[in-house]
Amino acid sequence: MPEAASAHALRARIGDSEFDRDTAVTRREPGVYDIDLSAGWTIINAVNGGYLLAVLGRALADALPHCDPFTISAHYLTASRPGPAVVRTETVRAGRTLSTGQASLFQYDEEGHEVERIRVLASYGDLDGLPDDVRTTALPPAIPPIDQCFGASDSPDGAPVPGSSAIADRLMLKLDPGTLGWALGAPSGRGEMRAWFGLADGRDADPLSLLLAVDALPPTAFELGLTGWVPTVELTVHVRARPAPGPLRIAITTRNLAGGFLEEDAEVWDSADRLVAQSRQLARVRLG
Amino acid sequence: MPEAASAHALRARIGDSEFDRDTAVTRREPGVYDIDLSAGWTIINAVNGGYLLAVLGRALADALPHCDPFTISAHYLTASRPGPAVVRTETVRAGRTLSTGQASLFQYDEEGHEVERIRVLASYGDLDGLPDDVRTTALPPAIPPIDQCFGASDSPDGAPVPGSSAIADRLMLKLDPGTLGWALGAPSGRGEMRAWFGLADGRDADPLSLLLAVDALPPTAFELGLTGWVPTVELTVHVRARPAPGPLRIAITTRNLAGGFLEEDAEVWDSADRLVAQSRQLARVRLG
Repeated sequence: MPEAASAHALRARIGDSEFDRDTAVTRREPGVYDIDLSAGWTIINAVNGGYLLAVLGRALADALPHCDPFTISAHYLTASRPGPAVVRTETVRAGRTLSTGQASLFQYDEEGHEVERIRVLASYGDLDGLPDDVRTTALPPAIPPIDQCFGASDSPDGAPVPGSSAIADRLMLKLDPGTLGWALGAPSGRGEMRAWFGLADGRDADPLSLLLAVDALPPTAFELGLTGWVPTVELTVHVRARPAPGPLRIAITTRNLAGGFLEEDAEVWDSADRLVAQSRQLARVRLG
Repeated sequence: MPEAASAHALRARIGDSEFDRDTAVTRREPGVYDIDLSAGWTIINAVNGGYLLAVLGRALADALPHCDPFTISAHYLTASRPGPAVVRTETVRAGRTLSTGQASLFQYDEEGHEVERIRVLASYGDLDGLPDDVRTTALPPAIPPIDQCFGASDSPDGAPVPGSSAIADRLMLKLDPGTLGWALGAPSGRGEMRAWFGLADGRDADPLSLLLAVDALPPTAFELGLTGWVPTVELTVHVRARPAPGPLRIAITTRNLAGGFLEEDAEVWDSADRLVAQSRQLARVRLG
């Protein structure tokens, strides 16, 4: 059981947890959903992009005939703030095994006009309906046991790890010491970030929380010695299997920083050593 | 100079080539473009997904204030056929350094109703406006010299390499013998495909032709011993730099085939050893 979760008398369950409550959307009319974006998933003042993707993914799961995001691509347009938002969805195509949908998240300006924050295209299916065949050459990341990794609560004097924020209280995030150099003023120079990941209340992972997981680690840019903010331009996630219960292992790699942009490739592995999600994002580096 | 191009008295130029003519869109009204999809970019009877992406990318380049696709995500809905099509674009956001647009390609059913084939979300910018900094750990693929690789014209008795088709006449595609086992009935079992790539008329690469390049090789599934069709569900391309003149090297890798789906990760390198494009697609495997 995740260390952070052991503090809870009772582990939260899928459907009844902080994450589920904070991603809950209310159907205003067919295809249109209201939500109050929680301040609990912010880093500094920015609402986490993975949390926002999970909100959009949940609205699409309700709007489409299929329940699981097989591939979802998000383009981030303007910075979201905690507070009221509306998600407008469109069913682009409803097929037998796959359906495709579009969703946009809007917030409101001073005059109450809608401002688009994110636009998403996604194809959904039913993970439980897939054949069991697995032929993979992918290997789980080499990461030390969870009790040898470091989270916000482990830092000296209980001071949070630099870069952590409100979202840190809701995550069980234990970073591989091998990718923690940035937090100690000695970035490795390698574009790598690895961690054990779970939700702090012990809720197990599902396809929706995988959308949060791929964007929940500190940016690889920190290990490249960059300190600025790294806003996501576009993030695409492939959910490849329903995750088994227990903590996830996440490895993020950046190979090419050029022209002020970099890619972040994330792999998410479950406790059964199954590659459950792959993602890639294009992010912008504010140098200095 | 690419071998295939040397046959031409004069090399085609960017803006005046087969590829440019076959991706040319005609503005019907602001944001709406007509095109006659060429039969010259088909594999068996299917219009190549990269060619279609280039058509959509070209329409967006005209509709948006920026000219280069930095990141473009396409969801393939129904199979396109050669012939008339219309591209409808929407400017989602016009920013200073990036603009985001959406585009859909439609064709017509028997009753003349529009049927959507592909929907795309993309963020465009200006590659020439980016700073020159490059910090990469990515290395060009290990691939034999072009004259030691094999194309359709090199196969015994001039018989085309299995799987090649009309598009083969328009490409300078030379496959690494190390990933050609499938064509000889001895697939390697590794999800890898590598090739030298160019356009047959010698036209140099540009950001638009990179959208074609990432989807132009035989599917890695062939080297995994699968023989069926591998339709693309979603394809995302990041164009990272304007390619230098000369042939490209493309390496495609599949690490995870599971539940009847696989990912294809492509890297495209130019003659200056610059990583100019990265792509990932989720494709469906029709087993058997």
